[in-house]
Amino acid sequence: MTTTPATVAIVGAGDYIGAAIARRFAAGGYTVVLGRRNGDKLGPLVDQIAAAGGRALGRSLDARREEEVAAFLDAADAEAPLAACIFNVGGNVRFPIRDTTERVFRKVWEMACYAGFLTGREAARIMVPRGSGSIFFTGATASLRGGSGFAAFASAKAGLRAVAQSMARELGPQNIHVAHLVIDAGVDTAFVRDLRRQRGGSDEIAPDELMNPASIAETYWQLHAQPRDAWTHELDIRPYRETW
Amino acid sequence: MTTTPATVAIVGAGDYIGAAIARRFAAGGYTVVLGRRNGDKLGPLVDQIAAAGGRALGRSLDARREEEVAAFLDAADAEAPLAACIFNVGGNVRFPIRDTTERVFRKVWEMACYAGFLTGREAARIMVPRGSGSIFFTGATASLRGGSGFAAFASAKAGLRAVAQSMARELGPQNIHVAHLVIDAGVDTAFVRDLRRQRGGSDEIAPDELMNPASIAETYWQLHAQPRDAWTHELDIRPYRETW
Amino acid sequence: MTTTPATVAIVGAGDYIGAAIARRFAAGGYTVVLGRRNGDKLGPLVDQIAAAGGRALGRSLDARREEEVAAFLDAADAEAPLAACIFNVGGNVRFPIRDTTERVFRKVWEMACYAGFLTGREAARIMVPRGSGSIFFTGATASLRGGSGFAAFASAKAGLRAVAQSMARELGPQNIHVAHLVIDAGVDTAFVRDLRRQRGGSDEIAPDELMNPASIAETYWQLHAQPRDAWTHELDIRPYRETW
Amino acid sequence: MTTTPATVAIVGAGDYIGAAIARRFAAGGYTVVLGRRNGDKLGPLVDQIAAAGGRALGRSLDARREEEVAAFLDAADAEAPLAACIFNVGGNVRFPIRDTTERVFRKVWEMACYAGFLTGREAARIMVPRGSGSIFFTGATASLRGGSGFAAFASAKAGLRAVAQSMARELGPQNIHVAHLVIDAGVDTAFVRDLRRQRGGSDEIAPDELMNPASIAETYWQLHAQPRDAWTHELDIRPYRETW
Repeated sequence: MTTTPATVAIVGAGDYIGAAIARRFAAGGYTVVLGRRNGDKLGPLVDQIAAAGGRALGRSLDARREEEVAAFLDAADAEAPLAACIFNVGGNVRFPIRDTTERVFRKVWEMACYAGFLTGREAARIMVPRGSGSIFFTGATASLRGGSGFAAFASAKAGLRAVAQSMARELGPQNIHVAHLVIDAGVDTAFVRDLRRQRGGSDEIAPDELMNPASIAETYWQLHAQPRDAWTHELDIRPYRETW
Repeated sequence: MTTTPATVAIVGAGDYIGAAIARRFAAGGYTVVLGRRNGDKLGPLVDQIAAAGGRALGRSLDARREEEVAAFLDAADAEAPLAACIFNVGGNVRFPIRDTTERVFRKVWEMACYAGFLTGREAARIMVPRGSGSIFFTGATASLRGGSGFAAFASAKAGLRAVAQSMARELGPQNIHVAHLVIDAGVDTAFVRDLRRQRGGSDEIAPDELMNPASIAETYWQLHAQPRDAWTHELDIRPYRETW
Repeated sequence: MTTTPATVAIVGAGDYIGAAIARRFAAGGYTVVLGRRNGDKLGPLVDQIAAAGGRALGRSLDARREEEVAAFLDAADAEAPLAACIFNVGGNVRFPIRDTTERVFRKVWEMACYAGFLTGREAARIMVPRGSGSIFFTGATASLRGGSGFAAFASAKAGLRAVAQSMARELGPQNIHVAHLVIDAGVDTAFVRDLRRQRGGSDEIAPDELMNPASIAETYWQLHAQPRDAWTHELDIRPYRETW
Repeated sequence: MTTTPATVAIVGAGDYIGAAIARRFAAGGYTVVLGRRNGDKLGPLVDQIAAAGGRALGRSLDARREEEVAAFLDAADAEAPLAACIFNVGGNVRFPIRDTTERVFRKVWEMACYAGFLTGREAARIMVPRGSGSIFFTGATASLRGGSGFAAFASAKAGLRAVAQSMARELGPQNIHVAHLVIDAGVDTAFVRDLRRQRGGSDEIAPDELMNPASIAETYWQLHAQPRDAWTHELDIRPYRETW
């Protein structure tokens, strides 16, 4: 594997998509620096990447804390110049509006929007003086429209999308590629398969009906590789059988 | 003036639009209950409404505090049943992304989005069991898209719009009319006229080039009067000369 | 009834919404000039308006023919100055894409989009030199997004919306109020009630579950009455129980 | 070069983007079948692709004629199974609304929307029974919103986008990948460079300020290569310095 003397930071590397993105950029030669709440849980992923010939570093990170985000990205940049930063923290919850506590509303925002702002801004702080870099945000269908029961989640995701748009318009001319990826529908996990089983009778899932995280990760990789004369700022990703 | 035994609560009654909405609903016969940070400043507006034969009550309210919002709306409802609740808190700021402090980002969100969620939810708590009421949110062009320098403001306003959409879809079938009004462009105030003067040479403003708050308030009034078989959930308002 | 020495032209006055708009503007004192394919069928509506003390003229009009549209609007303007022009031609069809004949695709476009362009342009021809007037277009949910089976209808409606947007941006500063109204869901007609009966078991319709055309017409009337410092260019209308 | 026993049809292969897409898919091993109004003009492109080791066929095609489109795609499919079909016909014009003749409005629609419908439907006719294939449509910023002077162009492009959306929702579950690409801003051509020179003083163009067609074509290629569990249905492409 050819290695690139550059790092890619992934904030929210704990879930299936984050892990797949990590594997993809590591396979592409980047040192990947991974952050999630409990960094110890990153061990298996870090080992897996190393076993495949890549280089990964796992860190504990509470992305809602400004100093932690700044230190996390500075440390990544100290390993090798920060080439890309990917914000992938979720926070999907569903409550009727009257049952949405202020604590839930605030917490979902802190995780899914405020932490994204901190991550984007701190990445910009490092990248802008250097004049290059990619900053990508993971969105969802809720980023585009609010639905019954999704006041907290949709509000946070819509807020994150507005951060991405504002940054794209400001930083694009400074050669920073900012993009927002709308990921719609379930990733193929044991959890989602169980859920389906409980709901309907059939245990069958049609081939490719659920998303393979590696397929999603490929799109992040391609975006990062886009030449600057033809950048994409927003796209959606859905399995072929998804209705929307 | 015919009076209606019902109240309309306005959260963020301090600015030109909020005051105009208060005057319009008071003229329509409602008791208007007005909240702003420093309630003492509501004196002149309350007096003006009273002098015109209406009834207004001014209250100090920090709309970012759950208990204050709940108490404010309960008190309004104790005067007479709460027929409408209008959230009209702004928070427009502009900073390059790297100069947007976490304090600014959080504060703008608390004022323009979180306070709106609290207001909407508490109004729903009162209205849903009764099966009627209007909940309206004031939006801006930034509600629809992020622009360079507007990460904080656009994020908060986009988040507020998602709250409105989610509530509309959940509460519409329960006979609660939730709407989001996108107000674009300057209201005709001394401040805006000064600003224009400083920027360009001419002191002239074309007739109706800026918005008269009373014109905007009329649309809030009409929305509240819509029969439930034909409700509007989103509309924009702009002066005729505005380009967008 | 106070009469206004001005006319309002309605292209597509044959359906429930068009007829309701006609009644509303006639009740407001305008002479309404109504066009539909077979003008003879307008007799009962014209009589009904006259019986209510209003003034209506019915005309045969193929809105897909440039000369006919021009003559229709010129004739309306000859009665009294043309104050508003409302385009309300539908064309909802549903076919799988492979069963959508080129004839259907073209015909739906001619009715729902091309005729709207002709109507809007000819109204502008009359109104712009005079510096005032309203031009409104009736839209649908399909104006905003394409759905399975709706390639022809959604394409035509999206195209009409783009005409409305382009005209609003160009003509607003010339004091012409252009607006697009997104009407979602069924109007309460015998046809729709029959359809429901065939589909489900119950004959019951919840109160206000379907739209009363008069409720919709009121919004057209209010838009026309908006002062030019606070114009709305797009809004949606839905019954309270509609999910979307 | 490895060749793939499959064809890719490009409708509107005459411009810079169409030619670049042709080169990219030819380089990827596909036989590319190219259509434009005057097929003779495709000679140099066909030769260039052949010289690079690829295989290209040029055909005269009026994409507004149903039989021609059907015959064109059938012929492509007869060479080898049709794997992808790309509709890339433009038609950008700008006229004030009152100067937009019905002929211009209709012609722009026929080129940019109706021809796209015919192309998409005929591609679906071939691909659906086989259960695979990509159908891509080239969009523009005007696809998303109408601007002053763009009634004809925006209407046609918005209509094309609605066709793409409707087809994506219907055909996705049948394993046909339908996507719409919003290409914003100028491609680097002699024409665009001249235009810039005439407008401003400087002859300088910043590196990558204009789009290289090859960069755009790469995105079409990647979309076609996406696995079906993670399909993109819409994305935008802009140079880094573009403001929007």
